[in-house]
Amino acid sequence: MISVGIVGATGYTGVELLRLLSAHEGVEVKVATSNSEKGKVVSAVFPSLRSIIDLEFVEHDSKQLNSCDLIFFATPHATAMHHVPKLLEQGCKIIDLSADFRIKSPDVWEHWYEVKHACPELLPSAVYGLPELNRVEIKSANLVANPGCYPTAITLALLPAIKNGLINAKDIIADAKSGVSGAGRKAALASQFSEVSESFKAYSVSGHRHLPEIAQTLSNVQQDNDVNLTFVPHLVPMNRGIFATVYVKPMGHSIDMQKHYADFYAEEKFVDVMPEGSHPETRSVKTSNTCQIAVHPGNSESQPTVILSVIDNLVKGAAGQAVQNMNLMFGLDEDTGLFAPGLVP
Amino acid sequence: MISVGIVGATGYTGVELLRLLSAHEGVEVKVATSNSEKGKVVSAVFPSLRSIIDLEFVEHDSKQLNSCDLIFFATPHATAMHHVPKLLEQGCKIIDLSADFRIKSPDVWEHWYEVKHACPELLPSAVYGLPELNRVEIKSANLVANPGCYPTAITLALLPAIKNGLINAKDIIADAKSGVSGAGRKAALASQFSEVSESFKAYSVSGHRHLPEIAQTLSNVQQDNDVNLTFVPHLVPMNRGIFATVYVKPMGHSIDMQKHYADFYAEEKFVDVMPEGSHPETRSVKTSNTCQIAVHPGNSESQPTVILSVIDNLVKGAAGQAVQNMNLMFGLDEDTGLFAPGLVP
Amino acid sequence: MISVGIVGATGYTGVELLRLLSAHEGVEVKVATSNSEKGKVVSAVFPSLRSIIDLEFVEHDSKQLNSCDLIFFATPHATAMHHVPKLLEQGCKIIDLSADFRIKSPDVWEHWYEVKHACPELLPSAVYGLPELNRVEIKSANLVANPGCYPTAITLALLPAIKNGLINAKDIIADAKSGVSGAGRKAALASQFSEVSESFKAYSVSGHRHLPEIAQTLSNVQQDNDVNLTFVPHLVPMNRGIFATVYVKPMGHSIDMQKHYADFYAEEKFVDVMPEGSHPETRSVKTSNTCQIAVHPGNSESQPTVILSVIDNLVKGAAGQAVQNMNLMFGLDEDTGLFAPGLVP
Amino acid sequence: MISVGIVGATGYTGVELLRLLSAHEGVEVKVATSNSEKGKVVSAVFPSLRSIIDLEFVEHDSKQLNSCDLIFFATPHATAMHHVPKLLEQGCKIIDLSADFRIKSPDVWEHWYEVKHACPELLPSAVYGLPELNRVEIKSANLVANPGCYPTAITLALLPAIKNGLINAKDIIADAKSGVSGAGRKAALASQFSEVSESFKAYSVSGHRHLPEIAQTLSNVQQDNDVNLTFVPHLVPMNRGIFATVYVKPMGHSIDMQKHYADFYAEEKFVDVMPEGSHPETRSVKTSNTCQIAVHPGNSESQPTVILSVIDNLVKGAAGQAVQNMNLMFGLDEDTGLFAPGLVP
Repeated sequence: MISVGIVGATGYTGVELLRLLSAHEGVEVKVATSNSEKGKVVSAVFPSLRSIIDLEFVEHDSKQLNSCDLIFFATPHATAMHHVPKLLEQGCKIIDLSADFRIKSPDVWEHWYEVKHACPELLPSAVYGLPELNRVEIKSANLVANPGCYPTAITLALLPAIKNGLINAKDIIADAKSGVSGAGRKAALASQFSEVSESFKAYSVSGHRHLPEIAQTLSNVQQDNDVNLTFVPHLVPMNRGIFATVYVKPMGHSIDMQKHYADFYAEEKFVDVMPEGSHPETRSVKTSNTCQIAVHPGNSESQPTVILSVIDNLVKGAAGQAVQNMNLMFGLDEDTGLFAPGLVP
Repeated sequence: MISVGIVGATGYTGVELLRLLSAHEGVEVKVATSNSEKGKVVSAVFPSLRSIIDLEFVEHDSKQLNSCDLIFFATPHATAMHHVPKLLEQGCKIIDLSADFRIKSPDVWEHWYEVKHACPELLPSAVYGLPELNRVEIKSANLVANPGCYPTAITLALLPAIKNGLINAKDIIADAKSGVSGAGRKAALASQFSEVSESFKAYSVSGHRHLPEIAQTLSNVQQDNDVNLTFVPHLVPMNRGIFATVYVKPMGHSIDMQKHYADFYAEEKFVDVMPEGSHPETRSVKTSNTCQIAVHPGNSESQPTVILSVIDNLVKGAAGQAVQNMNLMFGLDEDTGLFAPGLVP
Repeated sequence: MISVGIVGATGYTGVELLRLLSAHEGVEVKVATSNSEKGKVVSAVFPSLRSIIDLEFVEHDSKQLNSCDLIFFATPHATAMHHVPKLLEQGCKIIDLSADFRIKSPDVWEHWYEVKHACPELLPSAVYGLPELNRVEIKSANLVANPGCYPTAITLALLPAIKNGLINAKDIIADAKSGVSGAGRKAALASQFSEVSESFKAYSVSGHRHLPEIAQTLSNVQQDNDVNLTFVPHLVPMNRGIFATVYVKPMGHSIDMQKHYADFYAEEKFVDVMPEGSHPETRSVKTSNTCQIAVHPGNSESQPTVILSVIDNLVKGAAGQAVQNMNLMFGLDEDTGLFAPGLVP
Repeated sequence: MISVGIVGATGYTGVELLRLLSAHEGVEVKVATSNSEKGKVVSAVFPSLRSIIDLEFVEHDSKQLNSCDLIFFATPHATAMHHVPKLLEQGCKIIDLSADFRIKSPDVWEHWYEVKHACPELLPSAVYGLPELNRVEIKSANLVANPGCYPTAITLALLPAIKNGLINAKDIIADAKSGVSGAGRKAALASQFSEVSESFKAYSVSGHRHLPEIAQTLSNVQQDNDVNLTFVPHLVPMNRGIFATVYVKPMGHSIDMQKHYADFYAEEKFVDVMPEGSHPETRSVKTSNTCQIAVHPGNSESQPTVILSVIDNLVKGAAGQAVQNMNLMFGLDEDTGLFAPGLVP
């Protein structure tokens, strides 16, 4: 039994962890923290967990965390970095679902997150928790930086092409669309129902924090270290789901992208390369840890190939991938507790 | 291992059965039928089930059904009744999620469903599959009539009050609201996105088919056989969920309805009586088999008590309750495969 | 040309006033206030008004308001009462869309709104702005209290029955449902998209601030001053619309409610009594100032009659009714600027 | 007074025409046709038009159309082409909102619409009804082919760049997103609420019928006749709105795209070039005839410029643009009846 703590358990990522872990036979959630709700029982804040989670929220720096084997941080950025060093010293393993340990360069991180990093010395040893890329390193990691939601969908859509040098890495466009839960569970005018419903918009067109994260991963994978990606995020009036439409230019019209993708992910349990020309929908992976990918070759040599990639931003894009990482770190089957099919409707 | 067939597996109730049963350790789904999609693989119609369900749709009267231990009918009304007699003879057990075996009187059934019943001789032995009412009978039943979605939410909201004679059974109002999946998965103008979204309406105010079903159950429970219920259904622009607001007149202001309800359901795993004055939300039970109920006493003696009741129409209101019934019929723990908490958001 | 000021023009009611008044030929909007956005141009906050409204937000107590013929208050409660006395002295007419002048009794008001009233001496002269009830008084009023959204839908649904003594005034249930814009345009966790979407709930079951407002109006209309109404509000995942399902007990089964309603509202431009048995939808009145009402007699003497009533909460339930009141106060045709049909879809 | 007929008045485009024309002072709608609803009064099908439109649906080939000055076809493709020749002979002017007269080449049209064109001889004289491009020709046209919704949003986003040769016309990507009303008002499984809500998907990635329409317009505008556009449409769970994210490669980093766009559309009433770096939302133009455009230059020379373009698919993308064309054809002010600002929320 892995004893687990969740720091920041009142956000959407936190409550999703509670939901997933309640069905995971190898885990016991011992601590759930929330500075704003401390003292309340979990099920008073989330009646969906009545009779399922019997805990009281404690504050983030509760001593109770010390005795946990593993601690998930489901906090906004710039929180985990203040707690992680001490907890690592206590022997806890850490999976941080926030952005604090995703970027290797403290300068780049500080540029995008506009705050000084509290423990840059930990960045080199933090493992980027995309199992399809770093499975071996994750298994022995003490500190895993769980990828962002957009980066998960887009990186998985590009990995086979970039790794195998199939496309022009300097001409990639990722037009991505996210459900509203990606904005987090907090009072904000911009994500009020009546500001978002029956509308669609792009945001952060001039630059989104997930861009350096994606660029770092792809550049590491690419031999010549030079990936040029345009990334435009959009907001969809739905709760869950990320849809990435990725436009790439194959190095030659004869490259069989479909076959490359199918082969690349053949052994992966959570990446499903659909038949060529498929139209994945976010609902097919809602509540599931799967990323579904479809390849659409251009009709002529001058047209880009279109890669479509869908995930549930709260599962494969956050809590589910964190559980997948936990399974790897503790020697469990990678899909333990993650069998759920997509929820239709 | 129970071998199972699902007749009509392309509707929302059918695909929900596939989803729930894929996570049920004691069941193997052997047959899934669909007259419209026969010959296609299940996952071509429902990509959410890729790598999870490996079956091809066959037609409703496939001989393959004969070898199943249990057959679920997830068909529109007036279909099951044509197949059930033969299958019972073959030794199959049946859970019918449609309306065909819910009403004891063929005349009443034929009045509301406007078609002649094909096997009225089976009606007396069909057990109404509300476990909280008929658990013992369900255990030994060969033919279970799974309750409708509205009747489940409303009957559970009224059972303690009616059974214990706490309210005026002749003055009950059930104002109920349903998500759109209740209308079924079929091409219909009235449930097009742009006909339903950003709107709210009542329907069938002069009489809905679920009224005689609710009335039959409550009248059986009530000693003097005389329940008068006004039932108005409404359509909510959401996929899943039923919310029932039930107005009742207690027989005396001193009756502690909260206590009666809590006691009545104390041992039930799938009925959760919340603290007095709670405001349940349908999302708290989304994907869960739980019915959450809250009691709001009136502010004065002349005011009604308000009972609020929420379920997921596709789970406790259909497929989940069917699995609960299956567990009872086959001697499994009643909650096998039904542990999922509500999905938030 | 009526010169108009809007205090609190950044809320949903405020921007709806801007939208409606921009199409009203007899009005010029001269001042729009917002304490939070002062100094910004209106169209920077609401790009929908680019090239249509050319104003800069000023603060609530701007001297510019003094020169307006009419000032709309579209502020949260307990704001208008601090500004109205001075503005009335300046000769401005006032339409307050908030609750400050709706309740005649300061004690009742202070009980429900939990703050001391700043100018109780104005309450007697404030006219409740429901034109279908108080048209004559509105014409000569200087201070109009624009009705709440729920009270508009429910009162119009009950007026003919109560005024003509057709029903038992002590046994009325109003089960009402509102779109989310009714909660106002402000950062609040409870009305975040992902808290509201794909869910349905009741709220304030033990008592909502609109209850005393409805009760006051109906009791005034009813001869014997004794109306007993149970009112339960619900939240619908849509932007606009109120749907009221009102259950009443006719004084006799022979009363032709449909005829009474049709006659009562025969001359009203903004109340549409639909054919008996109709099922109104909120979308049919979206963006329109119309209230559509349908009457459903019970199937037997013991069953209640069901009155269905729909409005757009931001139009007939707020800004549109305010414009209707303005037209009356300034001697214009009552429907000037209010011709818009419902928006489908 | 222009006397007007609408053929196919029960679709979303048809009812939107009825809504817009009911507020147009220079028009009288004399005939509304519907083969499926003939004999019913309009307001029985659309209660939103009660007391506003007092007509009975007649069938498509009603003789009553002959006496109309102008006939709008709001029918599915391949219908107008069977009626238009006779009506033109009768002296009626025609605005066809379907695709029948948009493509100049019968071969191309027949390839994409998979049916033989009934009157290819009319194609040369049909004017493509994008006023910002063809204003002069529209004024004297008898037959106007009203543009598709995607083509309107995308063409307006590209016109200044293509006309002025600012971009590489062979490397354009248009990632477009549409509300569900674009699929039309008909019973179809794929646009059921529960198939579409809480999900997002691309469709027709291998080729959509609007592609040849966009390509034809842009190629005509471009001197060297060689535009290469990749167009991927997506479905958004909302009723109204089109959002186009267009990626272009400027011919040089020094080109001031913002200034070019602002100058190009300076005199246009219905194209609003927002300040550089703006994030338009579809809701800002909901119910409005305006197209809002924003320009986002790339951060470096190697990155594309992103052009964002939003319209209401039923207004500027269909019925509103048709009214704009009518105004031009009949010598009225181009914006008569089209003043409505966007609807928020």
